[in-house]
Amino acid sequence: MPVFKAPVQDTLFVLNDVLGIERYANMPGFADVGPDLLEAITAEAAKVAEEVMFPVNLSGDQEGCVRNHDASVKAPKGFKAAFDQYCQGGWLGLSMPEEFGGQGLPYTLHSAVSEYLISANMALMMYPGLTQGAIAAILEHGSDAQKQTYVPNMVAGTWTGTMNLTEPHCGTDLGLLRTKAVPQGDGSYKISGQKIFISAGEHDMSDNIIHLVLARIEGAPEGTKGISLFIVPKFMVNEDGSLGARNGVSCGALEHKMGIHGNATCVMNYDDATGYLIGGENKGLAAMFVMMNEARLGVGLQGLSIGEIAYQNAAQYARERIQGRSLSGPKAPNLKADPIIVHPDIRRALMTMRAFNEGGRAFALWTALQSDIAHRSDDAKARETASDLLGLMTPILKGVMTDKGFDHAVMAQQVYGGHGYIEEWGMSQYVRDARIAMIYEGANGIQALDLVGRKLPANGGRAVMALFNEIGAFCEENRSNEALSGFTKVLKKGLNDLQASTMWFMQNAMAKPDNAGAGSYDYMHMFGIVVIGYMWARMAKVAEAELAAGNSPREDYLKNKLITARFYMDKVMPETALRKTRIETGADTMMELAAEAF
Amino acid sequence: MPVFKAPVQDTLFVLNDVLGIERYANMPGFADVGPDLLEAITAEAAKVAEEVMFPVNLSGDQEGCVRNHDASVKAPKGFKAAFDQYCQGGWLGLSMPEEFGGQGLPYTLHSAVSEYLISANMALMMYPGLTQGAIAAILEHGSDAQKQTYVPNMVAGTWTGTMNLTEPHCGTDLGLLRTKAVPQGDGSYKISGQKIFISAGEHDMSDNIIHLVLARIEGAPEGTKGISLFIVPKFMVNEDGSLGARNGVSCGALEHKMGIHGNATCVMNYDDATGYLIGGENKGLAAMFVMMNEARLGVGLQGLSIGEIAYQNAAQYARERIQGRSLSGPKAPNLKADPIIVHPDIRRALMTMRAFNEGGRAFALWTALQSDIAHRSDDAKARETASDLLGLMTPILKGVMTDKGFDHAVMAQQVYGGHGYIEEWGMSQYVRDARIAMIYEGANGIQALDLVGRKLPANGGRAVMALFNEIGAFCEENRSNEALSGFTKVLKKGLNDLQASTMWFMQNAMAKPDNAGAGSYDYMHMFGIVVIGYMWARMAKVAEAELAAGNSPREDYLKNKLITARFYMDKVMPETALRKTRIETGADTMMELAAEAF
Repeated sequence: MPVFKAPVQDTLFVLNDVLGIERYANMPGFADVGPDLLEAITAEAAKVAEEVMFPVNLSGDQEGCVRNHDASVKAPKGFKAAFDQYCQGGWLGLSMPEEFGGQGLPYTLHSAVSEYLISANMALMMYPGLTQGAIAAILEHGSDAQKQTYVPNMVAGTWTGTMNLTEPHCGTDLGLLRTKAVPQGDGSYKISGQKIFISAGEHDMSDNIIHLVLARIEGAPEGTKGISLFIVPKFMVNEDGSLGARNGVSCGALEHKMGIHGNATCVMNYDDATGYLIGGENKGLAAMFVMMNEARLGVGLQGLSIGEIAYQNAAQYARERIQGRSLSGPKAPNLKADPIIVHPDIRRALMTMRAFNEGGRAFALWTALQSDIAHRSDDAKARETASDLLGLMTPILKGVMTDKGFDHAVMAQQVYGGHGYIEEWGMSQYVRDARIAMIYEGANGIQALDLVGRKLPANGGRAVMALFNEIGAFCEENRSNEALSGFTKVLKKGLNDLQASTMWFMQNAMAKPDNAGAGSYDYMHMFGIVVIGYMWARMAKVAEAELAAGNSPREDYLKNKLITARFYMDKVMPETALRKTRIETGADTMMELAAEAF
Repeated sequence: MPVFKAPVQDTLFVLNDVLGIERYANMPGFADVGPDLLEAITAEAAKVAEEVMFPVNLSGDQEGCVRNHDASVKAPKGFKAAFDQYCQGGWLGLSMPEEFGGQGLPYTLHSAVSEYLISANMALMMYPGLTQGAIAAILEHGSDAQKQTYVPNMVAGTWTGTMNLTEPHCGTDLGLLRTKAVPQGDGSYKISGQKIFISAGEHDMSDNIIHLVLARIEGAPEGTKGISLFIVPKFMVNEDGSLGARNGVSCGALEHKMGIHGNATCVMNYDDATGYLIGGENKGLAAMFVMMNEARLGVGLQGLSIGEIAYQNAAQYARERIQGRSLSGPKAPNLKADPIIVHPDIRRALMTMRAFNEGGRAFALWTALQSDIAHRSDDAKARETASDLLGLMTPILKGVMTDKGFDHAVMAQQVYGGHGYIEEWGMSQYVRDARIAMIYEGANGIQALDLVGRKLPANGGRAVMALFNEIGAFCEENRSNEALSGFTKVLKKGLNDLQASTMWFMQNAMAKPDNAGAGSYDYMHMFGIVVIGYMWARMAKVAEAELAAGNSPREDYLKNKLITARFYMDKVMPETALRKTRIETGADTMMELAAEAF
């Protein structure tokens, strides 16, 4: 049976020692966020993840959701009880504004604990995850009345939320969407159409479901310029806040998915359902992007979360399974064979996962901190810089961490040999669950295009220049520090490759845009490798300094941190050169074949 | 719904033009194997694959196998009928000796058509696949009486076969196995123990099942030196060849697997089952390796097969799905959006799959040809060279092609976006099915170790030196051919990297064996990249020559071949440098952490 232990010590190292979260005490919600509070909250979240969420993860996968004849949907056994406990603990509203019942704590902290909870039960955590995205959109684009009507119940988790974008013929290209909205003269609209792949679209976990639905108002322009966003509650909400009649929205079917079986992924039919405009006529995309950006950070976290739990289980199995002898002579001579963790190829898998998990954790929390600064700082310049960085990092976090999360679930499954292929051992679920994160909220190829086509050139390349300067300055500052030179040299080499490829795009994509598209995926991964390398160099710096000062109570932890940092520099960073070479060979061989020739 | 079309033209190009199979006409079974026979047989196999096997593939996955209360097992609907048609067509015995009812044709041809059949239905093709492995073991190690008793019925497919190696505590390390064999004094043994993960262990597709079972004769030495192989029929076979009483072997449970649901993967319980020794007391491993090597080639083919069908479906979807506009302006202005095949990142995926499929096909058939030469040539030196090469290529074909087959199934699934995650579209099945090929018949990490630890040093490196010389000579011979220099230069660079890493192992693994283990996986993939690159250079040479001669009836096909060859050189070959760098950083950072620290 799978195991899980929330990596609390590592989270605290990142928040306290690497990011120095105490330095932000002047931002709203950060005042009390010091080591003590962080330790208390992460420990409590670990308990919820390990003891409440995790026990119903494998059973939730095996049982799945069931749609009844009346189109109602039942989540797996134990899901509602676990979700209730999560909500009662205030976790859904951890970083939500206090005026709507939240705790107003940093989004960074929310991200830190969400990692554990998603590791423990990704499918279950999608119910609050979608709700948080919907809350963000209502808070940013809703009227005061809409906020009062919907947000407090959603923060409490008594109502949940959804995002309704996709239609059968329309995924990435929202300009094609057909769902119709007809104004009723009383400020409301009648919404009709079909949406697919709607996570948490219908279920028995909450009293009401608040659907945020993209639709086209009758007579609106074609394409993305004619899209509006609507609030469509499952049950109408009376003046006094009580629930009224059932609205004209229902679950037409559950999708038969490869994974996340515990999440009710629905075909949703809108049949003259009453909806309320949010964010202005034909301004739906802007409002939707608030949800989408939030969701993309959440999905990036899913990659990390599954990578972490897969790693933990692979490590446990590798310590317990005995098979064969070490190449350098028996390590457990009293047993009939050595535990397989003595084999270098098993170590290769474990260290690869570990290096991305620890580096990815720092990356995710550093990115989350930019979101806090962008929204909460009183310094306009700091907000701008953080917002730039957040925009730049979002596609990378989403694209790279979900690719890696899946790769690592596959790698962990491989450590199990044949047992990894058997559902009862739990590793197949991680692979199947992790797979969706590469697809939804913008397939990873779309993230790569967003990075190269939109985020790079934005504001004349301001965001990317600032980050290159920051990483370059870090290398320069620490160049004379002998203990760190092994890290900064490799990092600088990676940065050079990344800068060269950025330059190559500038020189070669203008005349031939396909050159940007052709290299975008390599570029996204190269960028991820360098940014995570930067995180590793910063972590190494902290670890070196604390070890050099002596008497650290966490000496082993820090030494292991340095070994893992070196592994990353040795084995992962060299990949930037390959990515650069591929980018520079351009689009030609990709685009030459006629479509019919494939 | 998924589609499939057997890539007959490409197979014929490889067999006729690249491998020049007519040159081997003097070998038994090769006399009539010219373009006409090849065209007829591949066309007929294509029909069986497309029209008989493929229609029950998706339904077989969804339905799965069922174990009844009496421990009998039912394969999915339509499986037996499809298998019967396959057997009646003589496909199971295509390359088996004529004296046992086979057609005696080349194993190379068997491999070529098996690719199609596995693409069409991997789970179904495992039933004959295991049977062929069992036949090979009986032919090589069985007595004449055993051959006469079992082989004709197995070649006809009225009886099927299995391999029983794995036990719950014993997979890779067969020395740990516990299944017991007690001699009965009449030449037979009583076999008792439990085997797991037994493919095709129990089912309703054949009249009898011939289990080949590894067990330890009472009093035999510990470890692998005390293992013997036994024939254990499901039904006893009477003197006259008719079926007698049920033997003491039964299916205890079906495994709940991630994929290959159509294959009955069984826990097999042996309870004083009657067995007959094959291959001599305590000589079980040698006999088992006949099956195992055969199986490894078959599993490598599975990687190719799934990669091919996944590619075909991704290409079809990319041509039909419209979404977004080309970066270089609308390509289908009459439609609301362009087909996604115009997007470079979709092309990147398609071309990557295509390059590995076509290169991998040549690699697989070239390897299969070595097997034919090793077994059928009358020239001892040729047999030795081919046998060396076959041994060297087996772990690479198995390890690299199955890793790639899985990667490409995932890549193809990604092209589908959200639909790729929905079971009805069929892409999830390819991912789930392909996953097992990386694990069974020796997990790919074991293949890497076999390559570095056994195949490289065998006979003082004779096999690897011969191959390096062959590839080096090819580059040298074609150096002055301007049309080919783009290929030979890149190939030579890859070969240099591979040779340098080989040298590095020689210099660094003797003193510290973990250095070999640490780099083995990178080395295996690097080797695969170079060998497939060699195949591409050879294919490019044929294509260039035919195009230069003018008036080719397959001009488009050859031009596309050259584009794909250039893609491979541009985008794939540079990976050898990364692999080399990783190998040369050695084992240190992998092995430093204490086991408990993971």
